Amino acid sequence: MLDPAVVLFANDAFYIAFNNRDFEAMEALWSREAPPVCIHPGWRPLVTRDDILDSWREIFGNADGATGISTHAPRVVSQATLHTVVCYEQLPGGWLVATNIFVMEAGELRMIHHQAGQCMNPPDLDEELQMALQ
Amino acid sequence: MLDPAVVLFANDAFYIAFNNRDFEAMEALWSREAPPVCIHPGWRPLVTRDDILDSWREIFGNADGATGISTHAPRVVSQATLHTVVCYEQLPGGWLVATNIFVMEAGELRMIHHQAGQCMNPPDLDEELQMALQ
Repeated sequence: MLDPAVVLFANDAFYIAFNNRDFEAMEALWSREAPPVCIHPGWRPLVTRDDILDSWREIFGNADGATGISTHAPRVVSQATLHTVVCYEQLPGGWLVATNIFVMEAGELRMIHHQAGQCMNPPDLDEELQMALQ
Repeated sequence: MLDPAVVLFANDAFYIAFNNRDFEAMEALWSREAPPVCIHPGWRPLVTRDDILDSWREIFGNADGATGISTHAPRVVSQATLHTVVCYEQLPGGWLVATNIFVMEAGELRMIHHQAGQCMNPPDLDEELQMALQ
C-alpha cells in the first residue's frame, strides 16, 4: 500500500503547477500510458492527453484564469493501483470540489483523472479539521 | 480485461435505479468493502456508505428531485480493478457531466465513486456519435 503522504504530495504537485501556471510541470504529471480524462468546471470532458494539455495551455495563457487556489480537507482513497484524492479547491471566486486520480507509471504517480465542479457549501474550519482527522 | 459492455451495464443500472427512485437497487450497487465517495452537483463530498445512502433517500424522497435522466456518450476506461465511466447526464433542467467508478466486489461491479457537475456545453449529436465511436 502506497503511503497516503506520497499521494498527497502528487496532489500538491498538481496544484503547485496550476498556481504557478507551470506548463512543463503540468505536462510531466499527466499519464502517458493510461488514458486520461480531465473535466474542468463547466467544460466538456477532455479524453486525450493532447486535448488535456491544450486546455492547460489555454488556461495558463488566460490572464483571467484561476490562480491562488488553495486546497482543503484532502481525502485519499487507494484501491489497487489507483489513488484518488477528493479535496476542496478554494479560489478567489468561490469553492469547487475536485476528484484527482493518480496511477503509478515509470515509478512516479501520474494523473489520469481530474474533475472539478461547483460546491455550494464550502467546509468550515471545524468540519475541515474533522474530515482531515477521519 | 473486463468487457466494456459489462461496465456500461453497471452504469445503466445506476441510472435506472436513479430514474426509478429505487432505493434498494441503489443501495445494492454501492460498494461495501471499498471506501466510496459521492459528490452530487453542488454538494459537499459524501465519504461514507451511510451518508451516501442517506443522500439517495433524501433525493428519492424529494418530489422535485431529478428524474428522467438520460445519459449520452459514455466512455469506459478500465485500469487494473477500477472501471470508470465518464458520461453526460441530460436532465429536464440542463446537462451535467458525471464520473462513475466501479470496482468488482463479490463478483459484481459496485460503485465506489460518483461525481456529477454542471456542463455548460452539452454535446451535439455529431460529437456524441464521434465520441461513442472513438
